[in-house]
Amino acid sequence: MTNQDLIKTLSIQTPSKIVLLVIDGLGGLPNPETGKTELETAKKPNLDKLAAGGICGLSDLVSPGITPGSAPGHLGIFGYDPVACNIGRGALEAVGIDFDLRPGDVAARGNFCTVDEAGRVTDRRAGRIPTERCAELCKLLDGQVIDNVKIFVQPVQDYRFIAVFRGDGLSPALNDTDSQHEGVPPLTVNALSPEAKHAAEVANKFIARAKTILANQRPANMVLLRGFSERPTFPSMSEIYKLKPAAIAAYPMYRGLARLVGMEVVKTGSRIKDEFATLAERYAEYDFVFLHIKPADSAGEDGDFERKVAVIEELDSLIPQLTRLEPDVIVVTGDHSTPALLKGHSWHPVPVLISGKYCRTDKVTQFGESACLGGGLGRISATQIMPLAMANALKLNKFGA
Amino acid sequence: MTNQDLIKTLSIQTPSKIVLLVIDGLGGLPNPETGKTELETAKKPNLDKLAAGGICGLSDLVSPGITPGSAPGHLGIFGYDPVACNIGRGALEAVGIDFDLRPGDVAARGNFCTVDEAGRVTDRRAGRIPTERCAELCKLLDGQVIDNVKIFVQPVQDYRFIAVFRGDGLSPALNDTDSQHEGVPPLTVNALSPEAKHAAEVANKFIARAKTILANQRPANMVLLRGFSERPTFPSMSEIYKLKPAAIAAYPMYRGLARLVGMEVVKTGSRIKDEFATLAERYAEYDFVFLHIKPADSAGEDGDFERKVAVIEELDSLIPQLTRLEPDVIVVTGDHSTPALLKGHSWHPVPVLISGKYCRTDKVTQFGESACLGGGLGRISATQIMPLAMANALKLNKFGA
Repeated sequence: MTNQDLIKTLSIQTPSKIVLLVIDGLGGLPNPETGKTELETAKKPNLDKLAAGGICGLSDLVSPGITPGSAPGHLGIFGYDPVACNIGRGALEAVGIDFDLRPGDVAARGNFCTVDEAGRVTDRRAGRIPTERCAELCKLLDGQVIDNVKIFVQPVQDYRFIAVFRGDGLSPALNDTDSQHEGVPPLTVNALSPEAKHAAEVANKFIARAKTILANQRPANMVLLRGFSERPTFPSMSEIYKLKPAAIAAYPMYRGLARLVGMEVVKTGSRIKDEFATLAERYAEYDFVFLHIKPADSAGEDGDFERKVAVIEELDSLIPQLTRLEPDVIVVTGDHSTPALLKGHSWHPVPVLISGKYCRTDKVTQFGESACLGGGLGRISATQIMPLAMANALKLNKFGA
Repeated sequence: MTNQDLIKTLSIQTPSKIVLLVIDGLGGLPNPETGKTELETAKKPNLDKLAAGGICGLSDLVSPGITPGSAPGHLGIFGYDPVACNIGRGALEAVGIDFDLRPGDVAARGNFCTVDEAGRVTDRRAGRIPTERCAELCKLLDGQVIDNVKIFVQPVQDYRFIAVFRGDGLSPALNDTDSQHEGVPPLTVNALSPEAKHAAEVANKFIARAKTILANQRPANMVLLRGFSERPTFPSMSEIYKLKPAAIAAYPMYRGLARLVGMEVVKTGSRIKDEFATLAERYAEYDFVFLHIKPADSAGEDGDFERKVAVIEELDSLIPQLTRLEPDVIVVTGDHSTPALLKGHSWHPVPVLISGKYCRTDKVTQFGESACLGGGLGRISATQIMPLAMANALKLNKFGA
C-alpha cells in the first residue's frame, strides 16, 4: 500500500479548513556579501509570526540532489509521488491554458522558430515574438484534419504554443523535433514504439504543412514540437483527502496542475493582492485552498536577489488577510528553490511551516532556511506535507486498532 | 523507477570535477574519559575548514541499526542500493586481487587452516602464515581440473586465498565449509538449490584433493571455503552518472569494489601520502576520483583509539594537497563506523561533508559526529551522497517540466 493509499483509507470530511500557500521558488542560497538567503533577508514579520507559532522544517520535493520542475514540485506538495506521476510537457502546457485535453489526445509543446532557406533553425524562439503574434499564427495552423486526426493549435505565451492531436490510435511515444540547437534543421518525428507509427506520420505531415503555411511569415516561419504526451490520470484530491479543494493561481501552468488533481480553479487577477482578495471572497466555499505565488520564482530565475526579497516582503504584508480568515491549518512552503545565485531551479530543500492549533511547536522563530533546519518537522519529503496538514486539521482517522 | 534510474536520466557530462574521499571506518564512539570520539579528538584544521565552508550531516550506509560490511558501505556511497546489490565474499575477494572473474565463475574465499589427525580444525588461520607461504601453497592447488571444471587458486593476504571454479553448469548456492568454530571438522559442501548439485560435487572433490596435497604441510594442512558467489553485474558509474571515474586505493578489496562499478583503478603506493601523490598526478585525467583511506578502520578494529586519532591527523595534514587541486565538489565520509570501543564495524551513522560553491552552508564548523548532527544535510541515506555530489557539481538536469 502506498502512503497515498493509506491516507485515502484514513481521511475524513470535517468542517475544518486548510490553506496551502506555495511560494514558487521559495528556497535560496546566501548572498555572498551577507550570508543570508533571499528569505532570510526579507523583512517578513507575519511569516515569522506563523513560524514562531507553528512547526517548521525543510522539504525535499523529489529527493536529495534532484532539481524539480514546477510540475513534480507541486505534485509532491499535493501528496503525489512526483516520479511516478511525472507529466509530459505537452500535456502540462495544454491543461495549463485551460485546453480540454481528453484521454487519447496527444499534446506537444510548440515553439515558433526561424529557419533559413536551407531549413536550418537560426532562432529557436523566432525572436521571441509577442503573444498576440503567436495567436495570429496559431489561427493559421489550427483546426486542420490529417488522416482523420484533428489538430488543435493554441497560443500559450510569447513564441510558445500547444499542438494537440485528436483521433483514434495515437500514441505519444514520439521524439522531439527540437534538437535544442541552432544551425541544424528540425528533427523528423519518429515512432519510439510500434503503436506510435500513425501519430508520427500525422505529426510529420502537420509539420510539413506548417512549413508551407508559414513560408512567407517573418521571423516565425517554422515550428518545433516537443514533449509529446497524454493527459495523466491521477486520483483526485477529493478522492484521497475527502476535500473540496480550490486553486487560486495567477499563472496558467499552476491552474493546469491543480485541475489535474481535481481542484476547482477559481478566477483571480494577476497580482498577489488579487489572489489574496480572491481567497477572502471564495474562502467560505471550500475546505482546502491552494494559493500559488509566482513572482518569487521569476525573480530568482532572473538572478534578481533584491526583487525576490521584495516579492517575499510584499507577500508577507498580505498574510494578515489570510490569518484573519482563521483557517484551522496554514501551510507555507515552495515547490523548489530558485536561488538568485543560480538563476534557476535548484535541488536545495525548501522551508516549510505548518501552523495550527495542534502543532507541536518548535523553537523556530524565523521562517528561513537556516532556522528551519532546526525545526520540529526535520527534513521531510514533500509528499509528507499533505498528511501532516490533514492530521493537524484533524481530518485523518487513527490507523489500526 | 528507482532513484538510480532517475539519476541516470538526469545526469550530464560536464567539465566539473568531484573528489570522493572515503575514510574507512570513520565514525566512532566517545572515549569514556573525554566524551569525544576519535574524529572529535583529532586535530584536523583542514577537515574542519572544509566542514565550515560546506554542508554536513550524518549518513546511514544501509539503514539505521545495520552494521555494514565494507562492500555494502561502499556501494551505498557510490549510489547503489546496498541490499539489492549485495556481493558475495568470494566474488569480492577475487575482484579485489585483480582476478578476471567471469560470468558463470563461482568464487570462494579460502583460509588455509590447521587440522589434527582426526580432521578437526585446530586453527582456522593456520597460525596466520605469511602471504609468501600462502602463495607457495596456492601454487600446489592451482590449475586443477575436476569433472571439466578448472579451479584457480590464488593468494590474497596472510592465510587467505581465493578458489575460483570455472566450467559449465555451476551455481554458487553452496554453504560455507568454515563452521567458524575450532574443534570440529570442516563442513561438507551442500547444494542449497538443485542447480548447485554439480558445483557441490566439484567443490567437495577439490577439498578432498587439497587435503591430500597439503597432508604433509605444517601448519597449513587444510582449507576452509566460504562465501561462494558469482560476479555481480551492476550498471557502471559511467552509465549512471556520465562520469569518467578513477579509484585510488591502497587495499585490494576497495580496488575490486571500484572495478565492479566501472571505475578505472589507478596504481598507487601503500601509504596515505602515496595516495595523495597519485591523486595530484592523475587528477587531470578524470572528472571523478574515489580516494580510499584504510588505516582508520584498521586502528578501530584493533581497538586503538589513539592510533585512529593519529591516522585522521595524518590524513588531515594532506588535505591541502586535495584542496589545491580545486575540485568543484569534495565529499568526505566513511563507509561505516569502526569505534575503537567496539573493535569492529558498527551501525552508528557516519559524518559526511560536501564542499562546493553551491552548497547551502550550515553552521557546522567542526567535522565530527556531534557537530554533523546539526548539519544542513540532516541524516541521509548514503545512496543520496552521489546525487548530492552530482547536483553540487551541476551535473544533473532538472526533473520534469
